[in-house]
Amino acid sequence: MSIAIAVDAMGGDFGPRVTVPATLAVLRENPSLRLTLVGDESIIAPFLSRLAPSERLRTTVLHTSEVVAMDDKVAVALRQKRQSSMRLAINLVQEGAVQACVSAGNTGALMAISRFVLKTHANIDRPAILTALPTTKGHVHMLDLGANVDSQPEHLLQFAQMGSVVAEALDGIEHPRVGLLNIGEEEIKGNELIKRADELLRQSGLNYIGYVEGDGVFKGQADVVVCDGFVGNVALKASEGVAKMLAGMIKEEIGRNWLTRLTGALAYPVWQGLRHRMDPGRYNGASLVGLTGIVVKSHGGADADAFAQALRVAVLEVEKNVPALIERRFGCAEAPATRESKTE
Amino acid sequence: MSIAIAVDAMGGDFGPRVTVPATLAVLRENPSLRLTLVGDESIIAPFLSRLAPSERLRTTVLHTSEVVAMDDKVAVALRQKRQSSMRLAINLVQEGAVQACVSAGNTGALMAISRFVLKTHANIDRPAILTALPTTKGHVHMLDLGANVDSQPEHLLQFAQMGSVVAEALDGIEHPRVGLLNIGEEEIKGNELIKRADELLRQSGLNYIGYVEGDGVFKGQADVVVCDGFVGNVALKASEGVAKMLAGMIKEEIGRNWLTRLTGALAYPVWQGLRHRMDPGRYNGASLVGLTGIVVKSHGGADADAFAQALRVAVLEVEKNVPALIERRFGCAEAPATRESKTE
Repeated sequence: MSIAIAVDAMGGDFGPRVTVPATLAVLRENPSLRLTLVGDESIIAPFLSRLAPSERLRTTVLHTSEVVAMDDKVAVALRQKRQSSMRLAINLVQEGAVQACVSAGNTGALMAISRFVLKTHANIDRPAILTALPTTKGHVHMLDLGANVDSQPEHLLQFAQMGSVVAEALDGIEHPRVGLLNIGEEEIKGNELIKRADELLRQSGLNYIGYVEGDGVFKGQADVVVCDGFVGNVALKASEGVAKMLAGMIKEEIGRNWLTRLTGALAYPVWQGLRHRMDPGRYNGASLVGLTGIVVKSHGGADADAFAQALRVAVLEVEKNVPALIERRFGCAEAPATRESKTE
Repeated sequence: MSIAIAVDAMGGDFGPRVTVPATLAVLRENPSLRLTLVGDESIIAPFLSRLAPSERLRTTVLHTSEVVAMDDKVAVALRQKRQSSMRLAINLVQEGAVQACVSAGNTGALMAISRFVLKTHANIDRPAILTALPTTKGHVHMLDLGANVDSQPEHLLQFAQMGSVVAEALDGIEHPRVGLLNIGEEEIKGNELIKRADELLRQSGLNYIGYVEGDGVFKGQADVVVCDGFVGNVALKASEGVAKMLAGMIKEEIGRNWLTRLTGALAYPVWQGLRHRMDPGRYNGASLVGLTGIVVKSHGGADADAFAQALRVAVLEVEKNVPALIERRFGCAEAPATRESKTE
């Protein structure tokens, strides 16, 4: 199967410096891949000179000089930047020219433009941001991570259904265990949203295992953890913050004196193993699920290795045809073409 | 100044095995301290035989055989267990026999009983759970961590005022920087609760620095971080979960083969330093702020070192007279004695 993916080459904190080398690396490891780099051709072209002819044939550049800045307001990105690299990459998905797009750009803009251009499947109210996170036992798919604040119980149910499809498709788990993020195992502890979502999930036919607490996420208690986007984003960022703080403390402890520097240097194999497992790049690539096409968001600060990982997530979702699986789960052959977006 | 503190000796996962040795350790390090151990005398007494006479004089045992179990429903603990070690310890605060109490017991029960027995200060709607968390630069006081779900903007304002008083009193910071936990720096990103709380905080006269994201908490961007209890609890538990997962990974990486075991052993001084800084016990002891008396909650799974730390938090709050400072900030001489609790 030939897979075509569009890359918003200008997105992220580092732009083409990171996105183009990452794209070419993934192109090399996957001979069936065709890639479209969307962005400023004068910046992108120099990177392509090193490609073998067979690789060059699988690479297209779609030139545009307009860019969504990391701090652009969503409304500006959506309404005034219709030729941005982000917008054109998403348009390519909508037109069927590619099967997925990847961007490290402004999350709010990516979500709004994707939703406007691609629409959600019928019967899905809102797309959600889903990512895999490491656990002591493997990994967990968590959603929503910030697309929806003030979610209703029905939305959490939809997130659970979408997350279940993704875990099934990407991990080959037959009945993924779905947990609802809560602050205690007692039923009394949750807020109103959680209690009502819990009732809906019990009747959903999903393999719903009940409540999961913040620490349970990383213990691998569930294959899918569902939460409101506000809560999920705070939990994700707090977790990243702690991991970074600890990594910084390890460095400081090693640098403390000659003895710690020496023994720290000797323990290099331990650090190597740890770095490999802690590497945020290994889990880069959040999916905007619920849309009629595949859109993967890379961390804005991703390096080339991490951005390549986001590209691999997109490839995998194309291979498994995740949007079609979600569409089927929600029992709708096609989203009505006349459906209006609320955002533009 | 002589300080008297009551300890719910039966609370927590380990009961007197942890609480009594911890209590005696703190008693020894602070000659002005008097401690009342509340619980089953037949279990507590054997531990006291080793005390020096001068220490024994500063130790009282208040016998009761009733205990709030970790999985007791809040209503059961509050209405049916009026002679529990937890209840009697809180009663001692209310009666003025001690200035603070410490418990590692059931959080929901501790909150409900404390609120019923001690009441909140006038002008404070709800107590909040506050704890110090490590940051790359020192520590931050975060609240609420689970006492209040579905908080209103006015509650977040009250949390901010209380947190500011605590940071001022315990850390000696003159105008503590107060941040509001949110999912992005753009004003567009927050939910309705956050936007309205942000407005209130801007007019509060506090040193309000605006939004702080999940990772910003651990970067030391603020001295006080305010959030709804649901969000705060999830963030706290997720952070604990990540820290534990990483500690487990370090162990696994060291145990991987003979080389990593050897070099890992040589790096002992690094682990020592790291363990000291990562030690959850260093930050054990969450305060139930907003009440007319001091109640400190220890982690249920705390060991003796960690439980001792919770006791030290209580001692410090007594020394600084935190409830009186909060009362003054909220401009009320005394809470009306006739005020009814909503919980019993």
